Amino acid sequence: MEVDKKEEIASDSSEQVVNPWEVSAKDGGKIDYDKLIDQFGCQRLDESLIDRVERLTSRQPHVFLRRGVFFAHRDFDLVLDAYERGDKFYLYTGRGPSSEALHLGHLIPFMFTKYLQEAFKVPLVIQLTDDEKCMWKNLSVEESQRLARENAKDIIACGFDVTKTFIFSDFDYVGGAFYKNMVKVAKCVTLNKAMGIFGFSGEDHIGKLSFPPVQDPYFRMTRDVAPRLGYSKPALIESTFFPALQASGENGKMSASDPNSAIYVTDTAKDIKNKINRYAFSGGQDSIEKHREIGANLEVDIPVKYLSFFLEDDAELEHIKKEYGEGRMLTGEVKKRLTEVLTGMVERHRMARAAVTEEMVDAFMAVRPLPNMFE
Amino acid sequence: MEVDKKEEIASDSSEQVVNPWEVSAKDGGKIDYDKLIDQFGCQRLDESLIDRVERLTSRQPHVFLRRGVFFAHRDFDLVLDAYERGDKFYLYTGRGPSSEALHLGHLIPFMFTKYLQEAFKVPLVIQLTDDEKCMWKNLSVEESQRLARENAKDIIACGFDVTKTFIFSDFDYVGGAFYKNMVKVAKCVTLNKAMGIFGFSGEDHIGKLSFPPVQDPYFRMTRDVAPRLGYSKPALIESTFFPALQASGENGKMSASDPNSAIYVTDTAKDIKNKINRYAFSGGQDSIEKHREIGANLEVDIPVKYLSFFLEDDAELEHIKKEYGEGRMLTGEVKKRLTEVLTGMVERHRMARAAVTEEMVDAFMAVRPLPNMFE
Repeated sequence: MEVDKKEEIASDSSEQVVNPWEVSAKDGGKIDYDKLIDQFGCQRLDESLIDRVERLTSRQPHVFLRRGVFFAHRDFDLVLDAYERGDKFYLYTGRGPSSEALHLGHLIPFMFTKYLQEAFKVPLVIQLTDDEKCMWKNLSVEESQRLARENAKDIIACGFDVTKTFIFSDFDYVGGAFYKNMVKVAKCVTLNKAMGIFGFSGEDHIGKLSFPPVQDPYFRMTRDVAPRLGYSKPALIESTFFPALQASGENGKMSASDPNSAIYVTDTAKDIKNKINRYAFSGGQDSIEKHREIGANLEVDIPVKYLSFFLEDDAELEHIKKEYGEGRMLTGEVKKRLTEVLTGMVERHRMARAAVTEEMVDAFMAVRPLPNMFE
Repeated sequence: MEVDKKEEIASDSSEQVVNPWEVSAKDGGKIDYDKLIDQFGCQRLDESLIDRVERLTSRQPHVFLRRGVFFAHRDFDLVLDAYERGDKFYLYTGRGPSSEALHLGHLIPFMFTKYLQEAFKVPLVIQLTDDEKCMWKNLSVEESQRLARENAKDIIACGFDVTKTFIFSDFDYVGGAFYKNMVKVAKCVTLNKAMGIFGFSGEDHIGKLSFPPVQDPYFRMTRDVAPRLGYSKPALIESTFFPALQASGENGKMSASDPNSAIYVTDTAKDIKNKINRYAFSGGQDSIEKHREIGANLEVDIPVKYLSFFLEDDAELEHIKKEYGEGRMLTGEVKKRLTEVLTGMVERHRMARAAVTEEMVDAFMAVRPLPNMFE
C-alpha cells in the first residue's frame, strides 16, 4: 500500500489544477476534494473505514485519519481484508531529494507511514528518487545522492523501526530485479500515453520519459500496468495538500524558492515564531471590535489549519476552533499556541535527527530481507 | 573504440535505405558505401591507415581490413595516436541476443575484435543487450537472459582472452555507475532528438525511448553526448553489410525469419552444402557456353562475396576471382570451395563452442577489474 500526497494525474478541470507540479484552486478558493475524488475516480476514506482501522488495530486512528488529512484511497479496504485474513502486505512511500532541509509538509507521509507501520506491524519501503531530482532539477548525480542521504537522516528521525524499514536510493539500488521490472513496466506504456499522463513534450529529455517505470508512486500508471504483469494493484491513500503559510484558502503548495512559505525542520524557535506571526494567513477580522463581533473565518485561517494537522488533542483543537470562530479568541493567541506546537515538534525532530548516525543510515539502507516481506 | 556493423542513423536518401532495422540499395543494386560515408560524415578506412596498423602492430592486417570489410571509421586515427603514445584504450562491441543460434554475419564483429584485441593487447567489453531484445522482440526477461547466455558461449568460442575480456548482460549489470551514466546521458537527449535519430513514434513504448542511453553503440548520439559529459568521443569502425545468401547485389541483411537466408553456426555440413548450392545467388551465366565466353559477374556473386570475407589466402582468392570472372571457373566449383571453407569454419566453431563450460561463461561475465582498463 502506498502513501503519498499526490497522484500523478493532471486534472482537466478549468477551475482547479492539481498535478504533481501544480496545485491551484478556483479563484483562490478552496480545493474541492469531493470533485478531485470524482475526477480521479478514487474513494472517500470515510468514517466506516476509519472505524474499521480502529477495530483492527485496537488503537485510536491517527490524527491524520480522524481529521480527514488522508481523505481518499484506492483499494485500502482490500488491504484491510488482507490484514484480516493474515495475508502479507507492505507499505511504500518515497521522497524526491531535491533540497537539504525538509519542511513540515514533507514530514506528513512519513509521520503517517510510521503510524501505519506501528499499527499494522508491516514492512515499509521508502524510495529516494535521487535520479528523478538529478533529471528534473538539473542536480549532479553526486549532489542528488548527497541530498538523498541527508534526507534519509530526517526520515529516520521520524522514528521508523529499522528491523521493518528499507530506505533506498535509486542511483544505488536500480539494477537486477528492479531493472527487470522497469523494463517490464516500460513495455506496457506507450510514448503517447506517457505524454498524456505526465504532460511531457518533445523538448523534454528522454530521462523524463524513462523515469515513470522507476518510481512506483506514479500511481495510476502503476495500477494500470501491475495486473498486466500479474501483480496486484497497489492500494493507495491520498492526503489533502498541506498549505503554504501565506495561503488564503488552500491555493499553492509550499515553494522551495520561498523559504518564508513554509516551516522547515531546520528553523530555529525564533524563525518559527517570526514566520507564523508575519506570514501565516489569518482568518481573523481587521479590527478587534469586528473580530469580537463576527469571529474568525476558519475556512481560510492557516494557524487553525496547521493546528488541525499537528495538535494531537482533539478537545483542545475543538475548543480553539469554537472560541476563535466565535471571536472570543484572537489571532495572536492562536498563533502563539501554533508556535508552541511547532517549536516543540521541530525541536523533537532536531534532537532525533542529531542522534541519527551514519551507521544508522547504513543500517536502514542495507540491502537485506525484511521480515514478513514478499519474496 | 567500438566495432559494429551499423550506425544508428537513418539515411535520408530516397535511393538507398540504411538504418539499424533496414538495408536496401537503389533498385536492387549495390550499396553505395562512398555515399554512406558522405551521408554519415565518417572517414574512409584507407590504405595509409591500414599500413599504419600493420606498422604499429607488427603483423599482417586482418582480412577484414585488407579487403575493405571494415571500410569506414570515426577517429580510429586518434586511437592509433593514443596507442603510439602508450595511452590506454579499450574495445567495445555488443550483441542483441534475439535468437539462439548466430549466423556468420553475427560473427564478423567478434572475429574482428578478437584480432584487434590480440594485435593491440587491449581490454574488450562485450555488451549483451538482453533488455533491448526483451523490449523490441517482445521476449520475456527470462528468455532474453537465456539467449544472452547462450550467445555468450558462441562469442567465447571465437577465442577471446578471458583475462582481457568482460562480457555482460544488461539485465544483470545495469545499476550503480552504469545507471548513473544512463541518467547523465538521458539528460542530454531530448525526446524530439531521439525520435528524429531513431525514428520512434508515439505508439512505441517508453522502454524504447529509455533504451538509447543504455547501449553504447548508438554511436552518433554517444559521440554527441560524451564530450558534454567530459568524456572522449568513442572512436568507431564500421563494416560493410554481410549479404543474405539470396541477395542479388547487396540488398537486404539476413533475416532471422528465413533460415535459408544465412549460414548458421549450428548448420550441419549437409545444411551448408545444400544452402550454398540451392540459395547462394550466382553471378555466373545461364549456360556454360555463355559463361565460358563472358565470365561471371563478380559484383553480384554471393559465393565470391562470402569467400572474400572468409577465405584467408589472398592469392587463392585472387586466383578464384580471375578464373571465375573470366569464365574458366564455373559457379559449381566456386560453391564447392566456399562449402569447404564454411564447413571448416563452422566445424571449428562447433568444437570450440562445445568446449565452453558454464564456468567459462561465469568467468567471462564476472564483474572484475580488467588489466589496463580505465578506472
